Amino acid sequence: MTQNSSSSRNIPVVEKILNANEQLASENRQRLDQAGVFGINIMASPGAGKTSVIEKTLAGLGGRFKVAAIDGDVATSIDADRAAAAGATAVQINTGGECHLDAVMLRGALQQLDLPQFDLLLVENVGNLICPANFQLGTHKNILIASVPEGDDKPYKYPGMYRGVDALIINKIDLLPYIPFKMDYFRKGVQLLNPDLVTFPVSCMTGEGFADWITWLVAHLQKA
Amino acid sequence: MTQNSSSSRNIPVVEKILNANEQLASENRQRLDQAGVFGINIMASPGAGKTSVIEKTLAGLGGRFKVAAIDGDVATSIDADRAAAAGATAVQINTGGECHLDAVMLRGALQQLDLPQFDLLLVENVGNLICPANFQLGTHKNILIASVPEGDDKPYKYPGMYRGVDALIINKIDLLPYIPFKMDYFRKGVQLLNPDLVTFPVSCMTGEGFADWITWLVAHLQKA
Repeated sequence: MTQNSSSSRNIPVVEKILNANEQLASENRQRLDQAGVFGINIMASPGAGKTSVIEKTLAGLGGRFKVAAIDGDVATSIDADRAAAAGATAVQINTGGECHLDAVMLRGALQQLDLPQFDLLLVENVGNLICPANFQLGTHKNILIASVPEGDDKPYKYPGMYRGVDALIINKIDLLPYIPFKMDYFRKGVQLLNPDLVTFPVSCMTGEGFADWITWLVAHLQKA
Repeated sequence: MTQNSSSSRNIPVVEKILNANEQLASENRQRLDQAGVFGINIMASPGAGKTSVIEKTLAGLGGRFKVAAIDGDVATSIDADRAAAAGATAVQINTGGECHLDAVMLRGALQQLDLPQFDLLLVENVGNLICPANFQLGTHKNILIASVPEGDDKPYKYPGMYRGVDALIINKIDLLPYIPFKMDYFRKGVQLLNPDLVTFPVSCMTGEGFADWITWLVAHLQKA
């Protein structure tokens, strides 16, 4: 039995907001391109390990590139503080209850950075597998971090997010021995939604898998 | 550095939607009360274990009560199928992209149930720590499931959700030996936001902790 919500009355408003967001995202992209900054938008569930991946990425890049981090959160500056401690120039966006970043928020944060100083921009979106998928920010790549404890059914249940990303980090693989996570079933769901998606199984606890992710990132940075 | 989004232009619309939702939630509550059904709204991050907790709850109640489950998801009927297999009469709400349930969606789902037949209604909200907190459904209790792999900083980062709930299940405690989760730090955050919150540390893998949760639930069911 299926019951759909009848939210059609909201569609024109939603379309206007999304069109305005697309326009501003395109302007953000231009600013990044003019400054020679490669930007990635990192999305995930709460607790999938976005900030830990950013910390490990900064360590893996080893100071070869200048990195800015923009951290979106409903509350606190815990993530921005961690990114700053790991060596990035960090800007915090407190969304004040909003469940995703949008291009307006990113524009405001970009204005706080002297962009030509940087090579790489890591944007940490709000922890949410639904809303951030609908709002392009103007970054060059959208990255999703899945984590093993979330379960192997997530691609099937959050198709919009899995469809729209350019790379997938599968985090917390050190927990695979303790969790009934069927990697084949997970990968089959990913394959159905996004057949050419590049994936990086990693563990922030052990460091496993980060070399491949860093190689991919550096290759894109050098092309940018 | 903090950059807030300037979304004040949306506030009147948002207030109207929330007021309409409160009205419909109150009507849903009346329907549940008239039918003698105790309703709980279960919220959590994606993959925190909402459906597993529902399965274990049905097993723990052992057929003593008639249970209906309403499962909200962006896509698929995986959760409703699991609740039905565990013994509940299940209704699926596919939200079609919406990031939370609301009182209108619940009203539609309630219309598909012969309510006086049931003692307990378990509503599984969409996996999201932000949006569901703003939409009362009309259930008697709001329950949050946190899970150990999400990390011990979640109360601090998602205060709206932790503030608004009546009970907290802390799931996946079997993973505590493998994860740097400081229970004291987590509990301190909970305490700051919601000092009298009753908590149930549990593991769906081992069954640990479920007896206390079932006792709490049955006590409320018998009062209803």
